Amino acid sequence: MASNGDDEQIKLVEGPAGYVLEDVPHLSDYIHDLPVLTYPNPLQSNPAYSVVRQYFVDEDDTVQEKIVVHKDSPRGTHFRRAGPRQKVYFKSADVRACIVTCGGLCPGLNTVIREIVCGLHFMYGVTEVIGVDCGFRGFYSKNTVALTPKTVSDIHKRGGTILGTSRGGHDTSKIVDNIQDRGINQVYIIGGDGTQKGASAIYKEIRRRGLKVAVAGIPKTIDNDIPVIDKSFGFDSAVEEAQRAINAAHVEATSVENGIGLVKLMGRYSGFIAMYATLASRDVDCCLIPESPFYLEGKGGLYEFIAKRLRENGHMVIVVAEGAGQDLVAESVEQQDASGNKLLKDVGLWMSLKIKEHFAKQSVLDITLKYIDPTYMIRAIPANASDNVYSTLLAQSAVHGAMAGYTGFVSGLVNGRHTYIPFNRITEKQNKVVITDRMWARMLSSTNQPSFMNPPKGTTVVSD
Amino acid sequence: MASNGDDEQIKLVEGPAGYVLEDVPHLSDYIHDLPVLTYPNPLQSNPAYSVVRQYFVDEDDTVQEKIVVHKDSPRGTHFRRAGPRQKVYFKSADVRACIVTCGGLCPGLNTVIREIVCGLHFMYGVTEVIGVDCGFRGFYSKNTVALTPKTVSDIHKRGGTILGTSRGGHDTSKIVDNIQDRGINQVYIIGGDGTQKGASAIYKEIRRRGLKVAVAGIPKTIDNDIPVIDKSFGFDSAVEEAQRAINAAHVEATSVENGIGLVKLMGRYSGFIAMYATLASRDVDCCLIPESPFYLEGKGGLYEFIAKRLRENGHMVIVVAEGAGQDLVAESVEQQDASGNKLLKDVGLWMSLKIKEHFAKQSVLDITLKYIDPTYMIRAIPANASDNVYSTLLAQSAVHGAMAGYTGFVSGLVNGRHTYIPFNRITEKQNKVVITDRMWARMLSSTNQPSFMNPPKGTTVVSD
Amino acid sequence: MASNGDDEQIKLVEGPAGYVLEDVPHLSDYIHDLPVLTYPNPLQSNPAYSVVRQYFVDEDDTVQEKIVVHKDSPRGTHFRRAGPRQKVYFKSADVRACIVTCGGLCPGLNTVIREIVCGLHFMYGVTEVIGVDCGFRGFYSKNTVALTPKTVSDIHKRGGTILGTSRGGHDTSKIVDNIQDRGINQVYIIGGDGTQKGASAIYKEIRRRGLKVAVAGIPKTIDNDIPVIDKSFGFDSAVEEAQRAINAAHVEATSVENGIGLVKLMGRYSGFIAMYATLASRDVDCCLIPESPFYLEGKGGLYEFIAKRLRENGHMVIVVAEGAGQDLVAESVEQQDASGNKLLKDVGLWMSLKIKEHFAKQSVLDITLKYIDPTYMIRAIPANASDNVYSTLLAQSAVHGAMAGYTGFVSGLVNGRHTYIPFNRITEKQNKVVITDRMWARMLSSTNQPSFMNPPKGTTVVSD
Amino acid sequence: MASNGDDEQIKLVEGPAGYVLEDVPHLSDYIHDLPVLTYPNPLQSNPAYSVVRQYFVDEDDTVQEKIVVHKDSPRGTHFRRAGPRQKVYFKSADVRACIVTCGGLCPGLNTVIREIVCGLHFMYGVTEVIGVDCGFRGFYSKNTVALTPKTVSDIHKRGGTILGTSRGGHDTSKIVDNIQDRGINQVYIIGGDGTQKGASAIYKEIRRRGLKVAVAGIPKTIDNDIPVIDKSFGFDSAVEEAQRAINAAHVEATSVENGIGLVKLMGRYSGFIAMYATLASRDVDCCLIPESPFYLEGKGGLYEFIAKRLRENGHMVIVVAEGAGQDLVAESVEQQDASGNKLLKDVGLWMSLKIKEHFAKQSVLDITLKYIDPTYMIRAIPANASDNVYSTLLAQSAVHGAMAGYTGFVSGLVNGRHTYIPFNRITEKQNKVVITDRMWARMLSSTNQPSFMNPPKGTTVVSD
Repeated sequence: MASNGDDEQIKLVEGPAGYVLEDVPHLSDYIHDLPVLTYPNPLQSNPAYSVVRQYFVDEDDTVQEKIVVHKDSPRGTHFRRAGPRQKVYFKSADVRACIVTCGGLCPGLNTVIREIVCGLHFMYGVTEVIGVDCGFRGFYSKNTVALTPKTVSDIHKRGGTILGTSRGGHDTSKIVDNIQDRGINQVYIIGGDGTQKGASAIYKEIRRRGLKVAVAGIPKTIDNDIPVIDKSFGFDSAVEEAQRAINAAHVEATSVENGIGLVKLMGRYSGFIAMYATLASRDVDCCLIPESPFYLEGKGGLYEFIAKRLRENGHMVIVVAEGAGQDLVAESVEQQDASGNKLLKDVGLWMSLKIKEHFAKQSVLDITLKYIDPTYMIRAIPANASDNVYSTLLAQSAVHGAMAGYTGFVSGLVNGRHTYIPFNRITEKQNKVVITDRMWARMLSSTNQPSFMNPPKGTTVVSD
Repeated sequence: MASNGDDEQIKLVEGPAGYVLEDVPHLSDYIHDLPVLTYPNPLQSNPAYSVVRQYFVDEDDTVQEKIVVHKDSPRGTHFRRAGPRQKVYFKSADVRACIVTCGGLCPGLNTVIREIVCGLHFMYGVTEVIGVDCGFRGFYSKNTVALTPKTVSDIHKRGGTILGTSRGGHDTSKIVDNIQDRGINQVYIIGGDGTQKGASAIYKEIRRRGLKVAVAGIPKTIDNDIPVIDKSFGFDSAVEEAQRAINAAHVEATSVENGIGLVKLMGRYSGFIAMYATLASRDVDCCLIPESPFYLEGKGGLYEFIAKRLRENGHMVIVVAEGAGQDLVAESVEQQDASGNKLLKDVGLWMSLKIKEHFAKQSVLDITLKYIDPTYMIRAIPANASDNVYSTLLAQSAVHGAMAGYTGFVSGLVNGRHTYIPFNRITEKQNKVVITDRMWARMLSSTNQPSFMNPPKGTTVVSD
Repeated sequence: MASNGDDEQIKLVEGPAGYVLEDVPHLSDYIHDLPVLTYPNPLQSNPAYSVVRQYFVDEDDTVQEKIVVHKDSPRGTHFRRAGPRQKVYFKSADVRACIVTCGGLCPGLNTVIREIVCGLHFMYGVTEVIGVDCGFRGFYSKNTVALTPKTVSDIHKRGGTILGTSRGGHDTSKIVDNIQDRGINQVYIIGGDGTQKGASAIYKEIRRRGLKVAVAGIPKTIDNDIPVIDKSFGFDSAVEEAQRAINAAHVEATSVENGIGLVKLMGRYSGFIAMYATLASRDVDCCLIPESPFYLEGKGGLYEFIAKRLRENGHMVIVVAEGAGQDLVAESVEQQDASGNKLLKDVGLWMSLKIKEHFAKQSVLDITLKYIDPTYMIRAIPANASDNVYSTLLAQSAVHGAMAGYTGFVSGLVNGRHTYIPFNRITEKQNKVVITDRMWARMLSSTNQPSFMNPPKGTTVVSD
Repeated sequence: MASNGDDEQIKLVEGPAGYVLEDVPHLSDYIHDLPVLTYPNPLQSNPAYSVVRQYFVDEDDTVQEKIVVHKDSPRGTHFRRAGPRQKVYFKSADVRACIVTCGGLCPGLNTVIREIVCGLHFMYGVTEVIGVDCGFRGFYSKNTVALTPKTVSDIHKRGGTILGTSRGGHDTSKIVDNIQDRGINQVYIIGGDGTQKGASAIYKEIRRRGLKVAVAGIPKTIDNDIPVIDKSFGFDSAVEEAQRAINAAHVEATSVENGIGLVKLMGRYSGFIAMYATLASRDVDCCLIPESPFYLEGKGGLYEFIAKRLRENGHMVIVVAEGAGQDLVAESVEQQDASGNKLLKDVGLWMSLKIKEHFAKQSVLDITLKYIDPTYMIRAIPANASDNVYSTLLAQSAVHGAMAGYTGFVSGLVNGRHTYIPFNRITEKQNKVVITDRMWARMLSSTNQPSFMNPPKGTTVVSD
């Protein structure tokens, strides 16, 4: 029944004026007798949709990726538009779906879970949805839980994930065995780039075995470090909640002489939260992110800037993304090996110590530094209204896609439109703040911090 | 110096494959010796931008409006991309800018004011910015206030507008006289569609007089009823704050037998806030908006639905946009003329009374209805983080545009990209919820409310 | 087994230096063979209390009511101190408790329910606790619900009452029949003064029948209008939440010319919420409460004050308690009988209309008035931390009291100490703002509003 | 003019039935010709008070400290009641007041500053109020700032202290020199027990020099560790804000397998915040405070309890006060000397490391621990409504006291009544959680944590 085609191959469709569609796989790509097994979409008889003309997405709808164009630009890459199709490839009564959440917490996880369950139930009449406990390994090491509209009814008002999550390794083969054994035919995987790589591997194994199982990813990353998509769900809520910490740092800094408020925000590889939180707040004097190298000592360094700003204003606020300055930290901490030094791998604690030591040694400015790490207080909040709506639509898009027989895709927002994106485009690289782009310039212009571009000779500077 | 060209004429540029640019006016369109008077953009020597390659926007950059396309779709309408240009048409020392805010309150007004002032000051070295007091009429009936980075430093943390606002008529000619008399050459106008029509008239009069004055609008509407742009600033904050009222209505309704919570939300002509707040909350049983007619009595009517839902669940929440059901209200209220009846023009108060009277008369269901009108508590909040960043970029775009000599434009987000849009495209119609589109279907599907499509004979139904 | 003693008689114990104890009834007062049926308090073997010396309340502990004294003042009234006793009058396995909530919503209701259930369960090993549905009438017209620590575990994080509530008449005799029929022997009644009068009647009927049933009240009133006790639970949360509405009114008022923000707050007979919210906010120009008469027209009237304040500041905020000015409202509304006029019984809507009409007629000041009624948004919030702790201790005190055989009492805080107070002291009068006392003077001093003490001849002034 | 009396001597007044008044000093105690220099209280002619009978406090009013009494208890200690007096000892025009804030931030500091300024201004017509910059040392090392009702108008909505604060040593003699040199005659000192000891020394030096300068303290301690008074301002706000951190810890813990959320709260010597936050939240499994010793290893130790609770529930939340377990920390950290170990003096970081190391070594339970330190996010918030009202009344009481010629006192709430308390009673000991008292038992009963009373032999246990 299954094809032996190369599942790695990317599905490209070309058109006039440089049009390219990066399409997503479909079950019929490798299950050749599938097309005869289609069904009318149950939404056609749903009274809620009786008023809606053209509810179903046109099969030819695609969403353009590059939309800042010149008069004669080629049309470039497009993605398949998400949404319900006239025909579906699963009979509702046959669907047995499962949901798994992996990686760190992010506002909106529970909304996505809720809306996959409710979307399957109310739009498609699917009643069998199970939750996998505590991430990928839960497929084979844990019991599952039944998910119904009733059990998920209020979960979007709570932070975290009711399914539990985990990090770390897993066995793709055992997962697919389990999917087969349990008769699951739709798999919804919510997680970051590592998780989506895992999802891609699961999809490939399923395809290799020729199973009629749709694999849909919903990209989750509080750091906004997934490429192609406009932004990840939970990001807005995180930036909003980060304001509390920055406000507190500002109050602490302004209430003493030479007060410094230091706030560490999420962002191991990408400084988006730090950058947007800084832009939203206006109380930040310096924002340090993984993408932009910096150094402490000497001319143009951080210490010099701190001294300057304190002399001018008497206080300052520094925001540092957790992944900023990792080379500096590594160099500094490697030289020691006491157990307390493990803590210094945290750039926030490390910078607190370094700045205090520097100014204590200098004994010119008598600084008071307060360090705030709001990470877990931010991750654990429920989604705000905007992220709730966004998460809802992402989940519904994923459901429409899986029901329509698409597989090996993530559901993602591109230029404000919901689309299906092939796994490889999401996992092949990370989204990063482009420090030669205008958003970073806007940030620099709001803080007037140094560019850290001309370190004195011999200075270690972070590079990524 | 001035042209006599027809200022009404829309600037269209056509290109291959159906490409059309709806361009915005430029001072050089009617001041013919202007091009020789350009200056290098001061941002070129701004240290904050030294790291940034390609900071300046390419003159040919345009943003595509229709991005859900087929392989062979025509390319369609584009707008000019916003951002700083290599050359500017004002010498910083010559600029005398003014800012005016009109219409109802909206979260983010103060952020826009702040960022126009700070953008002009820090990016372009402009020091003369004045605020017009209490809306358009303030140009000729009030003193102005000087605005500096210091005076606006913390205003984004407060709701409302520090400039004051007003509604109602004004005299375009007196405004332009005043602009001339005070030597103002950049006018920033923040307001809704009525205000932007006024701005358009001011621009035309300025053009008629051949003045070198740039007129830039920043569209403001908490109802999100301005077309073309993705969404208006403050909308996210409003939807977020509306959750409080819906939560309270839900708690009230569930704490008594046959409890009904009724929440009126903003939206005179467009139900966007009601629709998004309903989608974000999930506790709403019925959402009524101006775009979707409804009726009270008889089969398929609201009373029937209320009775049904109360029998099923014992409680329900209704969200009504302020402009919903205006025909019903008008018909009902016209028949009476006591002074208290003025209050009944408020659809929320009117519905409260109607529903109570109906069920009291029926004496089958002993309902308890609690009515909540959070309008002014929503409008008056400060912008959330997401709206703060958005308002900041809108303001900066407007500043870049005016400095570059563009005029008669609003600064607006199109498919996630900042653009300049000609006034006429913003004012020619209102943005409305398309009830034959998928977003409304999603809403209906989440509430399972009736479609109100088949009223019994003789029933009055709202139409718009 | 039962006494025929007069159950109305108040239990007074006198001591030296003018000491008086207003004691609460005890089951042994009318069940004469009860004392032999006591049991050791299960808390004695609770490991959690092993560290605590003197955990049990000394039988002789009483709490002094009047504590502002002179050197030679008489000692005055005392109440019995609340807390666990060495001996209890119920065997844990025999207890069958029920909980009922009556009247309007108030933050903390769910916490009180939770802590009665958990207190009985964890402190006394009582497992049979039932909830009465929707107030007093639920005893005989509804099914009950079983309450366990698991079912109430998270309810303190939600507003409202999970048991439902109702207002209005009920049949004491049928309630006591039901209590007897169901074998209930502890009745916890949460409600305001009307409810506690009902509770008192239930207690008397139970005593008349000679039943071994303890009746304990927990006074609930968001208005803080219950006498003797320091303050009612939920009051702090309500005052806190009221700040949002006042802030919004302030923003609205300051953003237009001659802006008036009018906020109606709870308080049918007592102006405590209005007074404390005004004191906490500092943005209020005039606070009107039921206890302090006012008038609109003429010298020293409200219109004059509004005109004066607008001329000075350009904006103002008025806070009005719902029960203020009822005579004025009644007089004004009686004269008309259209259906919309029902709405005018709401003092907030009535004042809005009156003020607008007055200034429209005057046509000197062109005012803009925004009216905010946050009542249901305040009532429906969950308790804040302080009210959560307070509600917990009230509930635990009630449990300790009932287990110890006390009955016909409410659990209340007197001078910061938990006590048992006889019903009659709670229901004989209402707590009101004493406008000849210092707290009101502080309020007047913060707003500088008129005293409304010298109305022109013929003016109607509210009196209470 | 000045007396040479022993200023250390406590003013005791005795009365019948064991009545004792612990009175506060008065300027006339050591300035013998002062009584002739009194003035009528300006409040007598304040229109705001015309309605208020008996506004002035009776000179004989005192507030009883011990109010849980027996029929024949002695009456015990009393404090002088706070409030305005008929006569004042300063002419308004002569008053030159100063305000200083010392120690850590606490919600409400700005409200106290605001209300001293406004109280002096509006109640007493005092116009000269100056602010001392950055704590005690600011008297002689900094410029002062003028404080007017206008400059302090909105500061109660902001966290921190507009005056700045500092910790550490100061020179009493130089401060008093400066007070004399600047002609200051009322000194308001806001700070914790260390600060009030400093205030006491300043008072004594002023008395020694025979100066007519009133010294009034307003006790400030977010930890609630000041004795005699009911609770310190800002405490309620802090407990409220702590709920966020505990909620986040709960969400993090429940979203993974064997999740532990660890929250450090303020409380160097007293565990009040930890205890109340735990009682208010109900999501805490273990609360560790300085007053209650604990140990990690062995039977009855923390590790054992963690393992037990994780096996039962799969997750847990631990709250630790910053001063808990200091002996354990000291012992553990002394043995090492690397720079990172400085961080381990923080009990939260230390416990995180210890618990992780223990369970890694055990390799039975694979725990995930998330550590949250919300300290600076809590300290920096503005006061909630309840603390705003409380801070207002504390400030007004201090002003009334100083105007009436009292000195060497703090203004404090005793059993819900505002009083003047002599410095020595505030500074002689710290308020601590009494772990043999009922509040701690309530806490233990809510968490069911071990008592840590029977450590295995050789175990280090914290003692205080």
